[in-house]
Amino acid sequence: MKKIAVMGFGVVGSGVVELCDKNKESICGRAGDEIVVKYILDLRDFPDSPYADRVIHDFDTILKDPEVEIVAEVMGGLEPAFSYSKALLCAGKSVVTSNKELVAQKGAELLALAHEHGVNYLFEASVGGGIPIIRPLHMCLAANQIDEIAGILNGTTNFILTKMIRESMSFSDALALAQKLGYAEKDPTADVEGQDACRKICILASLAYGKHVYPQEVHTEGITKVTLEDVQYAEDWGGVIKLIGRAKRLESGKLMVMVSPALISHESQLSTVDDVFNGILVRADATGDVVFYGKGAGKLPTASAVMGDIIDCAKAQGTIESLRWTDSQADTVGNYEDYPAGVYVRCRGVHAKETAVSCFGNIRTLHRGGEHDDEFAFVTEEMTERRIAAARRQMQSDGVEVLSCIRTLDY
Amino acid sequence: MKKIAVMGFGVVGSGVVELCDKNKESICGRAGDEIVVKYILDLRDFPDSPYADRVIHDFDTILKDPEVEIVAEVMGGLEPAFSYSKALLCAGKSVVTSNKELVAQKGAELLALAHEHGVNYLFEASVGGGIPIIRPLHMCLAANQIDEIAGILNGTTNFILTKMIRESMSFSDALALAQKLGYAEKDPTADVEGQDACRKICILASLAYGKHVYPQEVHTEGITKVTLEDVQYAEDWGGVIKLIGRAKRLESGKLMVMVSPALISHESQLSTVDDVFNGILVRADATGDVVFYGKGAGKLPTASAVMGDIIDCAKAQGTIESLRWTDSQADTVGNYEDYPAGVYVRCRGVHAKETAVSCFGNIRTLHRGGEHDDEFAFVTEEMTERRIAAARRQMQSDGVEVLSCIRTLDY
Repeated sequence: MKKIAVMGFGVVGSGVVELCDKNKESICGRAGDEIVVKYILDLRDFPDSPYADRVIHDFDTILKDPEVEIVAEVMGGLEPAFSYSKALLCAGKSVVTSNKELVAQKGAELLALAHEHGVNYLFEASVGGGIPIIRPLHMCLAANQIDEIAGILNGTTNFILTKMIRESMSFSDALALAQKLGYAEKDPTADVEGQDACRKICILASLAYGKHVYPQEVHTEGITKVTLEDVQYAEDWGGVIKLIGRAKRLESGKLMVMVSPALISHESQLSTVDDVFNGILVRADATGDVVFYGKGAGKLPTASAVMGDIIDCAKAQGTIESLRWTDSQADTVGNYEDYPAGVYVRCRGVHAKETAVSCFGNIRTLHRGGEHDDEFAFVTEEMTERRIAAARRQMQSDGVEVLSCIRTLDY
Repeated sequence: MKKIAVMGFGVVGSGVVELCDKNKESICGRAGDEIVVKYILDLRDFPDSPYADRVIHDFDTILKDPEVEIVAEVMGGLEPAFSYSKALLCAGKSVVTSNKELVAQKGAELLALAHEHGVNYLFEASVGGGIPIIRPLHMCLAANQIDEIAGILNGTTNFILTKMIRESMSFSDALALAQKLGYAEKDPTADVEGQDACRKICILASLAYGKHVYPQEVHTEGITKVTLEDVQYAEDWGGVIKLIGRAKRLESGKLMVMVSPALISHESQLSTVDDVFNGILVRADATGDVVFYGKGAGKLPTASAVMGDIIDCAKAQGTIESLRWTDSQADTVGNYEDYPAGVYVRCRGVHAKETAVSCFGNIRTLHRGGEHDDEFAFVTEEMTERRIAAARRQMQSDGVEVLSCIRTLDY
């Protein structure tokens, strides 16, 4: 019998405890041993919970109990999760987590500690909720060079964009609905400004390329500026707008890592990833494009990923060596101004078309229904981000107001 | 350094050898050790190959060489692959394979042998080519009860159906094109009659439900009877026709396993799996729907899956216990006549509509462009396969000719 502890009895934590009970038999079959929750650490009491007797408030109880071999850290946030995880790993206990913020900031350090103490630090639940992505990336695709990763990694923003695309709902109405349904927090900044997606692409990039990618190195744009007009022009272009986190190795050896809204063709598998679902495309040299799709968040999907990791820890003999990356200086990620991109631009002003051609070169005009004064929209060919920024500045100084500028991506 | 042997130097075998060379460094990083091909077993010589010096013709050389710890069986077919695999496992060597025919027929026996001798028998490449599916199913989703699996598992038939749907090409023209492009064999029976898809759903069902499902227990229908008229009516219904292999646990404890063409809604993630790609949907109790998408065949995608298994064998200490199922009598699969289904029916005859209503109950009429004499098409509500068959017979005896009858599925 393996005894575990769960730190944090919120949505995910309660899911882990319930799942552990509900699917006891099949979990035992897969793990080769029964898995039992001995402690639940939380600041609160839960007198009405069937698990009330296991709730404790003192972290040291877990740390000092030699019976507890595996701990699920599902508290979220950097502290005290970081200090607790370090202490547990140093005490020879494996830690599994859904805490993307912590993995994105401290992954390399915690993985090194796990290695040093012959235990595991696993985080399948930190990206894509219940979608298997971490393990396939380092195990199934182990024989591949990963060329690129592109993903719809945040369910909240994908829900908002889907409402805008399918029901012509405005950004603010869609956000309000997402909050009402519990998909978005009261303070939705981390979701709508792309920070959550950024943490997740950092984790995937670190794993795929072997060096820690820090969120602060990654150029990140959210979806707050996307309008219904943009959605209509995207349709005319032949696609939809999605918030995409992407990573790629550049010829220089540095990485391109970025989060931004983007126009994605209807032909792409990512274009049909709707509502709160996530979809992650991995482009690898041998296997080609592989796409993983499923629920990116939620109590049971995330708990399922945490339990998968717990089972792996229960079976593992020593550290799983392939799941690791090294720490890095702040030079892993290339300057985003050197990245290539095409853009869709919506602008307003007299002679907008002529100005667009003189600033951006070859363009393709886009249309939407109705009368729109002197609004003009187009897509450009591929150029560097630096050139795009310069062309935008030139347009503005030529008296054409740039209303929207969104990348076009080919996945 | 781990020495391996590759049995069969055809498309997949040469892919494995090349990949092993090409991605040597990253493979070494993931496996924790260098992996080197010592022998290539084939009946033929390959004097012009850069690997000519490793080609041997005598299986015993591999069997008796204690240096060879892992063998890739990529010969295909039941014999001599089965005898060789048995001998190797008994000699304490791990075997990895892309041979779906062998796994579907002899999987339980070979897995038991591997377990007995403390080695591994791995087969990620046998289903979905380069798509990670076997490992996610038994590891990442280990904490789940698998409710259902439904997949587009055969690239050849999916290519043919895509050509019929997108370019209104007839079945026979699309098949001829697939043969010309090398996607279909000269004798395409195993693909177009659904046998290949059947083997793959048997492997997935065995793994998900823990009991060996034999292909001969599974009701299997191919796509040879699908017409362009059916494709048009499917579009009016709101979807496309795909060849679907599916498995589900019935309330009786028996399994529902079946391969057949089916109408799939445009809303489904499976509906956009086109050309030679495969897509596999796994519906699990905790994680909900998860979809895996990628190239289901081809030299490097399949070789990539084989190499992933080789790396796992190199890292494994003893048998991976979660990857196993027990043998079964021929009573694992329920009588398919008890399965529930809705159907789309295309028929011809006077009073076709009235007859359809009297035979099938509530129906929804479908339409296609142009004049079609007394052709009539409709979809039914869900009923048992037995009732569907009885209603079809009744229609025929009432003088209405049933031209097509294809299931409608909700994935």
